[in-house]
Amino acid sequence: MKRLVLLWFLLFCTFFLHAEDGYRLWLRWDRIENKTLLRSYSGQITFIRLPGETPVAGTARQELQTGLSGLLGKVVGLEPGKTRKGVVGGLISDPVVAAYLSAEERDRIGEEGYLLRFDGMRILLAAKDDRGLLYGAFHLLRHLQQQLPLEQLDFLENPKMKIRVLNHWDNLDRTSERGYAGFSIWNWHELPEYIDPRYRDYARANASVGINGSVVTNVNANALVFRRDYLEKVAALAAVFRPYGIKIYLTARFSAPMDQGGLPSADPQSPKVQKWWGDKVKEIYELIPDFGGFLVKANSEGQPGPQQYGRTHVDGANMLADALKPYGGIVMWRAFVYSDKEPEDRAKQAYNEFVPLDGQFRENVLIQVKNGPVDFQPREPIHPLFGAMPKTPVMMEFQITKEYLGQGTHLVGLASMWEEVLNTDTYARGKGSTVSKVLDGSLFGYQLTGMAGVANIGTARNWTGHIFGQADWYAFARLAWNPYLESKAIFLEWTRLTFGLNPQVVGPITEMLASSYETCVRYMTPLGLHHIMAEGSHYGPGPWIDQIPRAEWNSAYYHKADEQGLGFDRTETGSKALAQYRPQLAEWYGDKTNLRFLLWFHHVEWKEELSTGRTLWAELCLQYDQGAREASALKVKWTTLQPFIDTERYEQVSMHLAIQEKEARWWRDACISYFQSVSKMDLPEGLAPPKYSLLYYKMLIFPYAPGTRPKW
Amino acid sequence: MKRLVLLWFLLFCTFFLHAEDGYRLWLRWDRIENKTLLRSYSGQITFIRLPGETPVAGTARQELQTGLSGLLGKVVGLEPGKTRKGVVGGLISDPVVAAYLSAEERDRIGEEGYLLRFDGMRILLAAKDDRGLLYGAFHLLRHLQQQLPLEQLDFLENPKMKIRVLNHWDNLDRTSERGYAGFSIWNWHELPEYIDPRYRDYARANASVGINGSVVTNVNANALVFRRDYLEKVAALAAVFRPYGIKIYLTARFSAPMDQGGLPSADPQSPKVQKWWGDKVKEIYELIPDFGGFLVKANSEGQPGPQQYGRTHVDGANMLADALKPYGGIVMWRAFVYSDKEPEDRAKQAYNEFVPLDGQFRENVLIQVKNGPVDFQPREPIHPLFGAMPKTPVMMEFQITKEYLGQGTHLVGLASMWEEVLNTDTYARGKGSTVSKVLDGSLFGYQLTGMAGVANIGTARNWTGHIFGQADWYAFARLAWNPYLESKAIFLEWTRLTFGLNPQVVGPITEMLASSYETCVRYMTPLGLHHIMAEGSHYGPGPWIDQIPRAEWNSAYYHKADEQGLGFDRTETGSKALAQYRPQLAEWYGDKTNLRFLLWFHHVEWKEELSTGRTLWAELCLQYDQGAREASALKVKWTTLQPFIDTERYEQVSMHLAIQEKEARWWRDACISYFQSVSKMDLPEGLAPPKYSLLYYKMLIFPYAPGTRPKW
Repeated sequence: MKRLVLLWFLLFCTFFLHAEDGYRLWLRWDRIENKTLLRSYSGQITFIRLPGETPVAGTARQELQTGLSGLLGKVVGLEPGKTRKGVVGGLISDPVVAAYLSAEERDRIGEEGYLLRFDGMRILLAAKDDRGLLYGAFHLLRHLQQQLPLEQLDFLENPKMKIRVLNHWDNLDRTSERGYAGFSIWNWHELPEYIDPRYRDYARANASVGINGSVVTNVNANALVFRRDYLEKVAALAAVFRPYGIKIYLTARFSAPMDQGGLPSADPQSPKVQKWWGDKVKEIYELIPDFGGFLVKANSEGQPGPQQYGRTHVDGANMLADALKPYGGIVMWRAFVYSDKEPEDRAKQAYNEFVPLDGQFRENVLIQVKNGPVDFQPREPIHPLFGAMPKTPVMMEFQITKEYLGQGTHLVGLASMWEEVLNTDTYARGKGSTVSKVLDGSLFGYQLTGMAGVANIGTARNWTGHIFGQADWYAFARLAWNPYLESKAIFLEWTRLTFGLNPQVVGPITEMLASSYETCVRYMTPLGLHHIMAEGSHYGPGPWIDQIPRAEWNSAYYHKADEQGLGFDRTETGSKALAQYRPQLAEWYGDKTNLRFLLWFHHVEWKEELSTGRTLWAELCLQYDQGAREASALKVKWTTLQPFIDTERYEQVSMHLAIQEKEARWWRDACISYFQSVSKMDLPEGLAPPKYSLLYYKMLIFPYAPGTRPKW
Repeated sequence: MKRLVLLWFLLFCTFFLHAEDGYRLWLRWDRIENKTLLRSYSGQITFIRLPGETPVAGTARQELQTGLSGLLGKVVGLEPGKTRKGVVGGLISDPVVAAYLSAEERDRIGEEGYLLRFDGMRILLAAKDDRGLLYGAFHLLRHLQQQLPLEQLDFLENPKMKIRVLNHWDNLDRTSERGYAGFSIWNWHELPEYIDPRYRDYARANASVGINGSVVTNVNANALVFRRDYLEKVAALAAVFRPYGIKIYLTARFSAPMDQGGLPSADPQSPKVQKWWGDKVKEIYELIPDFGGFLVKANSEGQPGPQQYGRTHVDGANMLADALKPYGGIVMWRAFVYSDKEPEDRAKQAYNEFVPLDGQFRENVLIQVKNGPVDFQPREPIHPLFGAMPKTPVMMEFQITKEYLGQGTHLVGLASMWEEVLNTDTYARGKGSTVSKVLDGSLFGYQLTGMAGVANIGTARNWTGHIFGQADWYAFARLAWNPYLESKAIFLEWTRLTFGLNPQVVGPITEMLASSYETCVRYMTPLGLHHIMAEGSHYGPGPWIDQIPRAEWNSAYYHKADEQGLGFDRTETGSKALAQYRPQLAEWYGDKTNLRFLLWFHHVEWKEELSTGRTLWAELCLQYDQGAREASALKVKWTTLQPFIDTERYEQVSMHLAIQEKEARWWRDACISYFQSVSKMDLPEGLAPPKYSLLYYKMLIFPYAPGTRPKW
């Protein structure tokens, strides 16, 4: 009876005191329910040996102890007991560890890397530095939480990228540009005194998947962050991140010497400007000795930059790089530029501006390039700069926050898209010159390598607003560690860690994740359509937008629908953007049977028969219809999981899937309505007509859609 | 050994899975640790009998079961077992319950009231309606969580106010005006589909202390909330609130018929305008049958209102009242008005505008009046409208969010201030005519009565940002239920519920709460000073502000410091605002030995000797100095609690107390600096000089102080 009460009380605790609100992410470390396995693990893991005095080593030890104790339901101590069965870890310079390694293995373990191996007696964790220990510790915990056999523990992992950073487009007032999970988690006002426990949990979650840097401010930057009191706030955050191996970075507003320094110009050739930056960087490093460096958006969308002074990106980036060099800091200079002049083709601009500058940047500069040439569209060809700057490290910028893919409420597994991008062959050094090989430095021998992800993290209790947004955060980090991972493997891993191992759960969820990307493309921008979202907020469809003075901010600029047909001719007969790719890739992109990119590169007649045997018009309607139906199917599929998932997370996802279904239908109906108003063609037989008139869809306005500038 | 492991595991669960993050507020229901008492309670409470089919009755039953099961560490069932010992509850119309009540008791239990009594055998819970059951259930749980003897259960409680509402100054974009706990908890964008679990927890927390209404939108109102899709969102929130007995209210922007209806005017005499409101109200009630009504800020700080059309507050309020009347809705019309013209004395304006209108409002209109005549200052005399409108229900507006009292980071127990206000004697019907008696209707026989609190709730995990902000929320609700409660009793109750019963904790915390209000007044606005905060944000000191075109937005307007002296003469020789009070109260306020209000009503020479024997200048300096020292002492006192409080909440409060100490010192130094620059007098001997120059303090700017309009 007493036992029963206690059991009930435990359940009660679990239910009432610890609702499954999603806060724990993939870091659960709940006791393993499989009794046999638990006994086996417990027998093999009786202690943890992981010396090290650095803060990061301390974190590794603590996380390992917390995690193992949770998973095994017992306190795992730090002293070997009667048995020698346990975790034996340490640096490769540690003789105890070195004894178990071959010389070749010691050589192969690189910076931040680790070897993790079960030899039948002990679990060996060896690393070259303390970050490697931390990453290896989390790898071990992931392995056990997935209840994989100890015998499979045989890994030698080195990160493929040196810089694995999140970009927070967070403003100092806590609004978050393109943030759909509430507001910024950085409470600048109460820093440096008040340290929200969430800062630590943030660092921990990132470290658990290998992120080693965080740019905490918006690329549309505010120079106020360089004021002394703000730098002290930054230092307080840095101190929280440090034990998790995470460096802090700031965005540098190019006009900061004017905004904060009171100088009359920000000309990078001005000695006073150079001195201001030099002094400011010195001040920063005095407060934050391991400061990472700057991320810069210059001469783009109204942001100041060197071109205002007749200088180049090289002049601007190198000036900052020179200031940072003595301290080991880097500059991530964004290639997402918008000149003041109207471009002949928006998609061509960055390539045209940056390729001529190749080789002129300092060694501590990386060029940060978005995955595609326009702007994080549901589907884009790769950015032509990948493979086109052999002498300048080019790093990837992915957008984890779903500005254009359903924002905070759609389930879309972004890893599918990223995999497509990373695996694309640039042919820069012949066949096999994938984007991944550009990024990891293997193609051109870049000394600096990196991947940035625009974070989808906010004040929402579950971090990402949509529970499945966690999968995107997770996937980004895993791909930054190793861009060669398969999306399906990542989905599987995340699902098992987040929702447990029940195959009745794991199968459907991974299928949902894996299929959802194509579904989203279908109901939003099928066949290579792009940038037809509502203006400003990018919330919902807006293919009719054609009145904004700036041409390339209009949907019509991108889809070029007219009575004859649809699509942007970027071939030889059009903007010639296709020619920015190597011939083999251009051929593939330009192939009209490659329907993924058809309307990206071609203006196609409505009546033209596609490789599917249907006309463009029929195919377009069918794609929209299918996308909407697939969104409904996602919701239905989820209902089959109800018996197997905790109520809280089940309900959260259900409610979001209802929104996704509604909005997918909205996309379908609005776009079919609009394109029909241009094509003047009848709907394909059997296709349900749009629910409302085109005017209805055009009149919908949402002034408070999240992620945009607040309006009062 | 196994036991030890289990114990450890339990601790582990508690620590890792359920950090004390403050989310649970005062609703803890943890198992009672005192074994003897637990056994005694358990023996007496073996079942719950609480029939009732309404949603609110269901909630009462469920909360009682959850709470008792938690407190007793066992499942308390709904069926009587062998013993008759248990909770017997129901409506007074229920024969089982009625049998235990005298006729007199049945008569005395009013709407929303309850009788709660232990008769040695059963705990009787009797109510006239289902809300009474809910409030009684929570009373019982509070009683037990405080481990008070069952024998003391002998209560017959009726709420003193009918309308007990929170006002959320929350905008549709989730920013919150004067909100310091993050952002609005209402995620309008994802409503109506996505129901954040926090909505329910919000309703539950409020119901637990008797709140029965919530105005979910800002008084600086946006008519968009009347658009159909937004009303559907409102209806979804109302559905969450309903089972907790909480009605939803909206702020009505007076120009809504123009903004949303497309009419050319919002003239309350226009039949088209009246029809628009009539139709809109009908639409609302079709969606929300128990909709509460409107809160209106009109002709104030730029908000539209009837005076734009040459009409009066009566015309405006009555038009809305007529629209709401058929459905039982009410209008709360704010008296916080700002005319476009510069007033002779800002403090006099509302009185002058509203007293002549007494008796002209419809029966379903209340006038909502801030506690003081200026604007939620740390200390104000009562608003002269209290007691001056015998024929019109006047309701109280308190500000729970601490716009002027340290915002999100200072520990200030507001109940002390509210008690001072509520106990003030208006002398409206002779001695004993306290503000409480005005509010509860006993003085003038108001049929409608109410109290509104401007909420301090936001997205912060602990709801209020500062853990001790929860005490203000709690205290407001308790005073709305019964304005005659003593602040110290409320502090004690909150502390015991929130931090447990250890006297080593309870004593110091209640002392901190009780003393903190005077401390805050001292370091901000001693001796009757007011409105000398920084402009706009009201964050930090700004006594030097004197350049804003609008006179009464300047600090100098309020303190009137000059070479001779300091303070606003509101006596016969000055603005005569003192004459708005009844003679006996005016005499007390005007008494120069009443230092609390000295500079509110008098311009006093720097060298004048006060009743303390010190000159005004010396007393002022001393008050600031003492305030800052007391703020430091708060921090020190808290450190004595470290051994007895969970680390998380201990740390949270510690960090905030560090900010409070810093900012109190800032207030002291900046104000002494500034007033010295005017008085030209030497600092009193022994007083530490301000840390920086006056210029330093004047130059401090905080463009992103929270609670204000976001700036990009």
